[in-house]
Amino acid sequence: MAEKAKIDLFDSTLRDGSQALGISFSVSDKIRIVELLDELGVAWIEAGNPGSNPKDLEFFRKVAAMQLSCARLVAFGATRRKDSSCADDPNMAALLEAGTDAVAIFGKSWDFHVKEILHATKDENLKMIGDTIAWFKEKGKTVIFDAEHFFDGHASDPAYAMACLETARDAGADVLVLCETRGGALPWEVERVTRIVVERFPGIPIGIHAHDDGGMAVANSLVSVNAGATHVQGTLLGFGERCGNANLSTIAADLALKMDRDVLNGKSLERLYTLCRAVAEVSNVSVPSGTPYIGDGAFAHKGGMHIDGVLKNPASFEHVQPAAVGNERRLLTSEVAGRALIFRALQRIAPYVDRNDERTSALVGTLKTLEAEGYQFEGAESSFELVIKRNFGSWHPYFNLVHYQTTGNHPVADPHSPETHMAVVKVSVNGSAGIAAAEGAGPVNALDKALRKVLESFYPSLRSVHLTDYKVRVLDSRSATASKVRVLIESSDGERNWTTVGVSRDIIQASWLALSDSIEYKLMSDGIVPPTEHTAHGA
Amino acid sequence: MAEKAKIDLFDSTLRDGSQALGISFSVSDKIRIVELLDELGVAWIEAGNPGSNPKDLEFFRKVAAMQLSCARLVAFGATRRKDSSCADDPNMAALLEAGTDAVAIFGKSWDFHVKEILHATKDENLKMIGDTIAWFKEKGKTVIFDAEHFFDGHASDPAYAMACLETARDAGADVLVLCETRGGALPWEVERVTRIVVERFPGIPIGIHAHDDGGMAVANSLVSVNAGATHVQGTLLGFGERCGNANLSTIAADLALKMDRDVLNGKSLERLYTLCRAVAEVSNVSVPSGTPYIGDGAFAHKGGMHIDGVLKNPASFEHVQPAAVGNERRLLTSEVAGRALIFRALQRIAPYVDRNDERTSALVGTLKTLEAEGYQFEGAESSFELVIKRNFGSWHPYFNLVHYQTTGNHPVADPHSPETHMAVVKVSVNGSAGIAAAEGAGPVNALDKALRKVLESFYPSLRSVHLTDYKVRVLDSRSATASKVRVLIESSDGERNWTTVGVSRDIIQASWLALSDSIEYKLMSDGIVPPTEHTAHGA
Repeated sequence: MAEKAKIDLFDSTLRDGSQALGISFSVSDKIRIVELLDELGVAWIEAGNPGSNPKDLEFFRKVAAMQLSCARLVAFGATRRKDSSCADDPNMAALLEAGTDAVAIFGKSWDFHVKEILHATKDENLKMIGDTIAWFKEKGKTVIFDAEHFFDGHASDPAYAMACLETARDAGADVLVLCETRGGALPWEVERVTRIVVERFPGIPIGIHAHDDGGMAVANSLVSVNAGATHVQGTLLGFGERCGNANLSTIAADLALKMDRDVLNGKSLERLYTLCRAVAEVSNVSVPSGTPYIGDGAFAHKGGMHIDGVLKNPASFEHVQPAAVGNERRLLTSEVAGRALIFRALQRIAPYVDRNDERTSALVGTLKTLEAEGYQFEGAESSFELVIKRNFGSWHPYFNLVHYQTTGNHPVADPHSPETHMAVVKVSVNGSAGIAAAEGAGPVNALDKALRKVLESFYPSLRSVHLTDYKVRVLDSRSATASKVRVLIESSDGERNWTTVGVSRDIIQASWLALSDSIEYKLMSDGIVPPTEHTAHGA
Repeated sequence: MAEKAKIDLFDSTLRDGSQALGISFSVSDKIRIVELLDELGVAWIEAGNPGSNPKDLEFFRKVAAMQLSCARLVAFGATRRKDSSCADDPNMAALLEAGTDAVAIFGKSWDFHVKEILHATKDENLKMIGDTIAWFKEKGKTVIFDAEHFFDGHASDPAYAMACLETARDAGADVLVLCETRGGALPWEVERVTRIVVERFPGIPIGIHAHDDGGMAVANSLVSVNAGATHVQGTLLGFGERCGNANLSTIAADLALKMDRDVLNGKSLERLYTLCRAVAEVSNVSVPSGTPYIGDGAFAHKGGMHIDGVLKNPASFEHVQPAAVGNERRLLTSEVAGRALIFRALQRIAPYVDRNDERTSALVGTLKTLEAEGYQFEGAESSFELVIKRNFGSWHPYFNLVHYQTTGNHPVADPHSPETHMAVVKVSVNGSAGIAAAEGAGPVNALDKALRKVLESFYPSLRSVHLTDYKVRVLDSRSATASKVRVLIESSDGERNWTTVGVSRDIIQASWLALSDSIEYKLMSDGIVPPTEHTAHGA
């Protein structure tokens, strides 16, 4: 069997993606996203623009230490400024400082942009492209050249657009990427122009970078591959400027399942659903249910005739098998939806769980209920593990809440104090009670402090625990301030990190659930034996 | 000037669209959507499936009375059952009873479906198609034939797929629609096959019906038109089974602005944004900000170089002019925005602001400080406007906070009550004080209720205000529960919507700031004159 043709996926979630409305990443968010993209099997990860954003440099220093299985990091920046030299250009210095072995350099290839935006001559722009790429090649970098606005440029002045690519190639560029920057090109144009470039530049990989302003980013990427492109840029969930970049989750599945390409360095597409969910959680967005392949509606059948057909033969209304991308069929009128998906996750985290154990189906039922309530365990595997433990064998809680109270005042008595809230927490551990109070910048902060204060007397090892991340997601936000919220908390004891989740209409209660899970998980992983006092958990 | 080629848009929001996860329409919703689609200028409105859904018949009786400017209503149903006659088929009776002058009849054109799903012979299926169409033609109906799974059918047994179309044409079908039912076909296949059909069936309009399972519904519709199709089926906002139908709002704009077709019966595309919003409202969904043409992010620029380019010439990063579809450019006042940009935003909202007024540079300074604190006005123009007003001329607050307190308990005294929190708010309005208490599902919900309760006695028009959206974004989430949070609140009085923002380390205080802005904005836009009592705002 002949080997599949390989396509390199280039993910820009951390760069172009961060330019989307409402998206912003912390350094630890970015590290997590790099891990997830590498797990998926993308070839390139564009990690940021160190020249325009100093915060990125801190991240590049941290990420340099990571061991990646197949992905290579890329730093992004512009060609040198006009009327200056590469050596004197601070952006290029920052790119070098990022320390990646590859850089993505974007340069103008549309005469209109050269004149109107850059206010440079066409020759000067060619020099800027050539000098910049040659300079980075001297420094030993792999250079990916992004020809910005290439398709508009080719429509306006084909000879000049081609001259930009030739200059880049002659300067040593390793990949020539055709950028459909405004996102408005039609597929037959993109295919025709890609074909011309592929024929004109034999022996050098040609890439495509598409935007979705005309609703054709995915199609434009595929027709470009069909015309010979072998490098596809986009963002895993389609985040990006304006209408977003080409959605790599859709493209990866289309290329692998419909065009028979190897897009994930031989890794399996079956983790697509789960890894996309994890990236969405870190990004604090939800995946629209109609998203191809990974949406919860992607294989959901509602129409009677569709359900009837799928029951007779799934191929009747499904273009691919849901399991191929780790998703699952949902028959919206039936009760069975979701069970197999949950069981798969269950086995990943608790391989000892036996499908034939009658407690298993009870547990699957519990998990289905929790997910219906708004729980999502993709980002919170520690809570997931606690749910399993509580449903299997003889679980005893490490403590029981007797009562908590939070009080907030504004203005506060002491105008100079940042503490606006107070919390009192009373717990019982193995029959003996404890109570503590604490102040905080908000109700959750106060509750967090009071809970750990009262428990440290019973479990000294909790002194090493601190919270490293706190996320709030408003579910069904149309119910406004009465909406359900999901709180994600990441904790650390200096050695390990773990994440827990809580859901409630009351943000304090949701936070409480995640906080108490975090503490129980820490004690459990330390191998501390819980007291045997029997009472319900967390209430 | 030659007349533009005409393309008939066929909207199935009320039929295929109602099969999407989470979409369901009341009879009055449907009436409103018919009005809106007719206003937009679509040619056909597929209003329902009277055979499968009795609720639809009631609606068809009501809608029959409506005066439409250009749209024609269509009732949807299957070919007659096998082993029976048209006269005895209850679904066909229901279709007739719907009383529309056009019907859309779907029939199988994939041999696999005929055998596996219908359990019929290929000949029997051809008879079912022929009989059904002939019967409706006898009744004087315009008949649109939907060849279900046509592309899969053509790939599997081209001769049979064509025989289905020939049978339909010979029986008198007025339009032959090629359905890409599973949504997985690639654009070059759809274009090639459409071309074959268009050549094979001169003189009869060919249509395309695409689904988005491969992320190519829009592209597949456009390539089909490029190959000669003149009838395009979809749903205005892309609702539909699984991943949805082709998005007609995107297709309409692409066809009109990029392929120079007349798609709206001569009506203007400039109402696209507004009419899509109205349909989204009736459907109780929000339009994702990245939606081509009609998303709030579709012409929003965030990256520094993009903003710089657009300020020099909008064509640099916009494929069409936002006004062409009734949308508008948004230069996001985010980290990357410079003073010049803030000044432009300022002039848009407050044209009376003079660049040389010394208060202006003070105001620009204030805005940059607020942004550094974590304010983001990109989604909250109403708070932005209030900041300007408070810094210019003689602003007086409508009320002043004396004190608020929130208290939460768990467990609550009454275990059956969903109210876990209590809030007390004391305000002064023009010297006279008021105090009110309320319970809520969480602290913010309680605070929201108490604040409006105490203010309604001073400002009765606030009774019409309700919150329609509530978002929480944790900034710098590494500080965990002590992180700053940004709260976005969207409010409505039934006529207008407005969005306000608050930032604080205390989620209650952040919510308070957004809530009080929301109320001040409402009173200001109602033209209510604030009291002249001088005190600082909100504290």
